[in-house]
Amino acid sequence: MFTLGIDYGTNSVRALIVRTSDGAEFGSAIVNYPSGSQGILLDPKDHNLARQHPGDYLFGLEKSVKTALAAAKKKPGFKADKIIGIGVDTTGSSPIPVDKNNRALAQDKKWAKNLHAQCWLWKDHTSWREAAKITELAAQHRPQFIAKCGNTYSSEWFWSKLWHCLFVAPKVFDAAYSWVELADWIPSVLAGVNDPTKVMRGVCCAGHKALYADDWGGLPDKEFLTLLHPKLADLRDRLYEKAHDASTAAGQLSPEWAKKLGLPVGIPIAIGEMDVHYGAIGCGVKEGTLVKVIGTSTCDCGVVSADKNVPDIPGICGIVKGAILPGFYGIEAGQSAVGDIFKWYVEGVLKDAKLHATLTAEAAKQKPGQHGLLALDWNNGNRTILVDQRLTGLMLGQTLHTTPAEIYRALIEATAFGARAIIERIKEYGVPIERVVCAGGIAEKNPLLMQIYADVTGCTMLVAGSSQACALGSAVSAAVLAGAHKDFPTAQKKMTGLKKVTYKPIAANRKVYDQLYSLYRQLHDSLGGRNKSADLSNVMKDLLTLKESTHA
Amino acid sequence: MFTLGIDYGTNSVRALIVRTSDGAEFGSAIVNYPSGSQGILLDPKDHNLARQHPGDYLFGLEKSVKTALAAAKKKPGFKADKIIGIGVDTTGSSPIPVDKNNRALAQDKKWAKNLHAQCWLWKDHTSWREAAKITELAAQHRPQFIAKCGNTYSSEWFWSKLWHCLFVAPKVFDAAYSWVELADWIPSVLAGVNDPTKVMRGVCCAGHKALYADDWGGLPDKEFLTLLHPKLADLRDRLYEKAHDASTAAGQLSPEWAKKLGLPVGIPIAIGEMDVHYGAIGCGVKEGTLVKVIGTSTCDCGVVSADKNVPDIPGICGIVKGAILPGFYGIEAGQSAVGDIFKWYVEGVLKDAKLHATLTAEAAKQKPGQHGLLALDWNNGNRTILVDQRLTGLMLGQTLHTTPAEIYRALIEATAFGARAIIERIKEYGVPIERVVCAGGIAEKNPLLMQIYADVTGCTMLVAGSSQACALGSAVSAAVLAGAHKDFPTAQKKMTGLKKVTYKPIAANRKVYDQLYSLYRQLHDSLGGRNKSADLSNVMKDLLTLKESTHA
Repeated sequence: MFTLGIDYGTNSVRALIVRTSDGAEFGSAIVNYPSGSQGILLDPKDHNLARQHPGDYLFGLEKSVKTALAAAKKKPGFKADKIIGIGVDTTGSSPIPVDKNNRALAQDKKWAKNLHAQCWLWKDHTSWREAAKITELAAQHRPQFIAKCGNTYSSEWFWSKLWHCLFVAPKVFDAAYSWVELADWIPSVLAGVNDPTKVMRGVCCAGHKALYADDWGGLPDKEFLTLLHPKLADLRDRLYEKAHDASTAAGQLSPEWAKKLGLPVGIPIAIGEMDVHYGAIGCGVKEGTLVKVIGTSTCDCGVVSADKNVPDIPGICGIVKGAILPGFYGIEAGQSAVGDIFKWYVEGVLKDAKLHATLTAEAAKQKPGQHGLLALDWNNGNRTILVDQRLTGLMLGQTLHTTPAEIYRALIEATAFGARAIIERIKEYGVPIERVVCAGGIAEKNPLLMQIYADVTGCTMLVAGSSQACALGSAVSAAVLAGAHKDFPTAQKKMTGLKKVTYKPIAANRKVYDQLYSLYRQLHDSLGGRNKSADLSNVMKDLLTLKESTHA
Repeated sequence: MFTLGIDYGTNSVRALIVRTSDGAEFGSAIVNYPSGSQGILLDPKDHNLARQHPGDYLFGLEKSVKTALAAAKKKPGFKADKIIGIGVDTTGSSPIPVDKNNRALAQDKKWAKNLHAQCWLWKDHTSWREAAKITELAAQHRPQFIAKCGNTYSSEWFWSKLWHCLFVAPKVFDAAYSWVELADWIPSVLAGVNDPTKVMRGVCCAGHKALYADDWGGLPDKEFLTLLHPKLADLRDRLYEKAHDASTAAGQLSPEWAKKLGLPVGIPIAIGEMDVHYGAIGCGVKEGTLVKVIGTSTCDCGVVSADKNVPDIPGICGIVKGAILPGFYGIEAGQSAVGDIFKWYVEGVLKDAKLHATLTAEAAKQKPGQHGLLALDWNNGNRTILVDQRLTGLMLGQTLHTTPAEIYRALIEATAFGARAIIERIKEYGVPIERVVCAGGIAEKNPLLMQIYADVTGCTMLVAGSSQACALGSAVSAAVLAGAHKDFPTAQKKMTGLKKVTYKPIAANRKVYDQLYSLYRQLHDSLGGRNKSADLSNVMKDLLTLKESTHA
């Protein structure tokens, strides 16, 4: 038996066909979104804007699944009718305005070119003013709403985006009958759901991004939403009352899409989750494991049994029951830019993509502290633990001799310090982290980065067995839903694994990085607004002293 | 009648032959120092080290003067025997260890390759520990010594360097009979002085770099020097009792050098001053004028009548009677790196020297505040107003869209903010600045930088008439000494001028730069140790707001 996992990333979609008995990958395909710049619709006048054309998702769905099927059919033992379920994960919060028939507005000619009628991609930051207002209103009127998302509502999230749309494009807002998260929309399209109020919504997006919780009766109450805008309160009736974890199906494959894709009609479709949540399942997440998916940005996920009393953790983006595994709280954190920072520096500043390899090789020769540099990894804001998009990058310690490779290493280290800040915050609140499993291209291909992460965090870094952990996690969810395994732990044990390589912290490096991390925290807390009477007079001098000590 | 000005820069020496009646330049030549990297001897293990081979100075002296003479001889009205005097300016503090016969130790085979037996170039920062100790000891025992140099003794200066030599190379220290500043050594060599205790010392280097003042009987007393090291106290007897301003001659041209260069025997040689001090004269310095020589680093010079009571100005490198013009206090300030920062970024980071022009053109299209960046100009420490070599560069505000041209503009602006800090500090203490005259290649060739300086400082920027202001100032000093003019004001009026171009502050730009400067000062005061309870939480956000307002 096989299941199909479909993973919608920021620039492309991938389909993966997996054998349920052992997780063997029989076929996969990646399709880049055809529109915009690397699949993203941009506004040259506003660097905060990032949208995506919903038509790209459907184009990519059909093409990736068909290509993966064609590849799998070449392998003995596979037939398309052995596929017993489908799982879907996507970026989020990426809400799409839809009409009464659950069609994306942008699929209509009238709206096709309107940037505000597209999918509002997770990394769209146009709504930062609204986010700040929601934070303020919630703090005043419903503190419980934001207590589990670090006491800060983000510009990347559902209500900020909808409210901003009301402000900049009221006609689009009025034309939209409802809004559906991409993670819920794709399963609903596959299931042929043509009424947005009947779309099965996942608690993953709902809880992490839309202030949904069973504790307070679902989405925010109308009284609160009216404080934002009466039209948002009206919209609540056309959204959903209940969101679900992965123990519930999103629907069954419709005849139309079964025919289009060449799959059996009626097979179950798992509830949609965000990419990294299913990715965590694909990496074998369980209590005590932190999963880091390291890509353009980084997402960190952990789980804690729902029987336990999980505290609110300041600055952690979200703690949501059922967001990853049924029966567990899902904890989500992350860094707004990781691979994107290296890409920016090498391609945007040095203008030569080939330099990644050269700079990595040169940076690997440096000892910790040798370059005398310290950077903040905030080129795209800070998601955790400051939850502030209005922060920017910083590089400190440059002399007239600083080299590109030194800057490159300092940028890698900055992301490692950001990773450590997250791990320390989670542990501080009693959530155990015994092992870190990393996934994503960078984790597989950059041993220098992985060793630096081990040295900076003090944790052994493990690497997920699959290069397509998110799609694999979706396939695992589909396998459990279809009954191939009795529960998630069993399915994970059979279908997921680890690569052999491990990165262990080196004691001598840890010592230097402990000092550098303490300097990083000085800058972090001061420029991040956590310390409003900071003494930074030691920072440059301590870096020079460290630098000189590595030469001694 | 003509005079010869000889200007020893960081990488090369230039000779300039000038008509005393009108300052017309009849011949000039530049010779690069042949040794090391661009004339500087480096230590790959210690980026603080910068030395120069004294033999390069003599090689460059002969070659540059002969070449300039050959060029002048082609012009009607010139003959070598019409040269009536020589003036010399050099970098400083650049002390040279010499033997009993006033020969540089490094001219002896035994010491030729020893880095510590060379000239200790002004920008050598190996002595930062000693500088800090001298500051501490002076504060405790002789506060008056450092009151006029911003209450901080620098690692670039005479006593720090000698003390450090005692520590790292005691054999060199013991072999040196005395130490002579380059600005005093070249005139003494030309005059055939073969006893270092008979070398005429200029008050410019003595006062600015060696804690010399008539008020306390010359150099620091032996009791104080003993606190540093008894050998430094012993050395005092082999240095000098009295230092002189430009009203005194350094000597007369010796027969040996007259023959070597093809010049008349016995013509007077002016007292050596540091390059920018004679440069200020070449730029027409007088009360109310600030002269900025903008090169690899920047020096700022002003004068105030010696009849006035000039206060100590915190952070200003030096206030020394007679250092520039006889009868006036000379005020010196400066930025440790300006052109060097642009050079580092373009050649050291982007690795393409041709990009200077492209980046300047792109940067010129940006509005103030548009890039959202803010930098500190401390890649080589901060000379004024923090007087702290142990500071480093900083760049803040990077996003994933920041371009090389934006970074380039931010670096130019950082140096402009540094320039404003100096001007404000000087004015704050009652020294008037009515006009700013700039000299150096950057002032002549980079209108973007000059306009930014005008917009940031709020001062109209004028440009010196001569491209060789330092050499011209030396020639002016020689002309006054030789009697071609009755005094410096007359000589300056006849021999110096301004270019026609002026850069006036643009009101709209000033408004934005006032805001950016106030953010710069927040970082400056916090990281520079002047504010030890800083709230920096606004900095990144204010930059983003400014950036967005330029798009609006």
